[in-house]
Amino acid sequence: MRLIATVAAMRETSRGARREGKTMAFVPTMGYLHRGHLALLKEAKKRADLVVASIFVNPTQFNESEDFSSYPREPERDRKLLEENGVDILFLPATEEVYPEGFQTTIDVTGLSEGLCGSSRPGHFSAVATVVAKLFNILRPDVALFGEKDYQQLALIRRMNADLNFGISIVGVPTVREHDGLAMSSRNAGLSPEERKAAPSLYRALSRGRKLFERGERKAEAIIGEAKGVIENPIELDYLEIRDSETLAKIEEISGEAAFAIAARLGKTRLIDNIILKEK
Amino acid sequence: MRLIATVAAMRETSRGARREGKTMAFVPTMGYLHRGHLALLKEAKKRADLVVASIFVNPTQFNESEDFSSYPREPERDRKLLEENGVDILFLPATEEVYPEGFQTTIDVTGLSEGLCGSSRPGHFSAVATVVAKLFNILRPDVALFGEKDYQQLALIRRMNADLNFGISIVGVPTVREHDGLAMSSRNAGLSPEERKAAPSLYRALSRGRKLFERGERKAEAIIGEAKGVIENPIELDYLEIRDSETLAKIEEISGEAAFAIAARLGKTRLIDNIILKEK
Repeated sequence: MRLIATVAAMRETSRGARREGKTMAFVPTMGYLHRGHLALLKEAKKRADLVVASIFVNPTQFNESEDFSSYPREPERDRKLLEENGVDILFLPATEEVYPEGFQTTIDVTGLSEGLCGSSRPGHFSAVATVVAKLFNILRPDVALFGEKDYQQLALIRRMNADLNFGISIVGVPTVREHDGLAMSSRNAGLSPEERKAAPSLYRALSRGRKLFERGERKAEAIIGEAKGVIENPIELDYLEIRDSETLAKIEEISGEAAFAIAARLGKTRLIDNIILKEK
Repeated sequence: MRLIATVAAMRETSRGARREGKTMAFVPTMGYLHRGHLALLKEAKKRADLVVASIFVNPTQFNESEDFSSYPREPERDRKLLEENGVDILFLPATEEVYPEGFQTTIDVTGLSEGLCGSSRPGHFSAVATVVAKLFNILRPDVALFGEKDYQQLALIRRMNADLNFGISIVGVPTVREHDGLAMSSRNAGLSPEERKAAPSLYRALSRGRKLFERGERKAEAIIGEAKGVIENPIELDYLEIRDSETLAKIEEISGEAAFAIAARLGKTRLIDNIILKEK
């Protein structure tokens, strides 16, 4: 696995690969890798000649209160995992390399940034869109892979990719879960034993709602109400909503396909999860 | 000259050229071409194997009052001029091709969009940045050329290109002028005979300021004051300012290089011009 730290070297390497006719799949990460990331790498491997991963904990997408500096980091373990999982190139730029002095450009995906996680994380999705656009331009991959766990982020990147004509194939990879259903997340490491015990009830709530849906219920309110009853203490619900799976517009009655999404606080940790409700 | 109307075909053609190892220079225009555009094409021809021009009157960058629909258009003449001036490919997409349903992404170059033309044209530079980013992504040119006449636009595109890592070489081409000094612009066609007679006093004002600068004056206020006296009736001055030539920050005393920029209304027409004040 080749390590690249500068934008110029990454661009040059990427150009070289294109010149040789090689296709490239890209997996952007913030490090502290778990099995969810490994699923992205596995899928990437199937879809291109070269797999490029990046590790960059993007400071602009953290709100002050979230404390960018306390985001978990384990660079040595990450490198080993990436190498073992077939990554050809690891791009790990320093912050000053990504945001040099005078930087002042931001990208907004208006509708998709509103509501859900956008409400409690002002500026977050604009920062995500901006850094992903930068990485897309530096690498020019054929395919880029993102976890379905961050559903709003995935929808937003699909939209940005289409709106700004990047022409990249955006692939969503299904959420990987612990044995008890808890969605894999770097943030799970911040849970206390008590919080960890309650955390799987987020997925159980979504699953309970899905059961009702499968029995024929189509009213969002009824499904949400049923799911809410499952959530355990000490979880503080942030949102539990049913939205159009593409536009993320609010819907009252499901027809076709919808995203059923949840976000909650467990002490200092904020967790999110979602499932797709789909008519057969 | 090849005509291309769809994003997909333009992208494919562009990819094909890259695969053949050909370099590409891009000249985006809104049509109604004049000698200023031809200077861009001439410079483009020197810098790459292929010259691609686009004609797209971008609706999002017009304020309502400016009336997008009355922007001058002469497509047949434009095509002929482009062909005669060595353009290999003309990209002329329809509005729906550029902004399909659901479009919602915008790019902001914060600092550079403020002040000067940004004050009287809210949203204009965000719309310019967005459409240029789209064109950059569709074409992926090696070089893109813009007129120095639209100085704030040029500075903003340079900044966006750097901030979003497009990696394109942005070339500014000197303003082409009428025999009496009036900067070439598609908008000059809207001037009444009386307005046309007064219009060259914009450039005369800038030139008068430059004379003072050349005689050693470095205070922005003094240079602006001297220039103001030259402006003729019925011109309504919008701004006359001296700014840092790269950041466009206001400056009181010139050291090194500065942009001396003017904007004014002549009846329904708004004209802009600028020169660079540079220490030898």
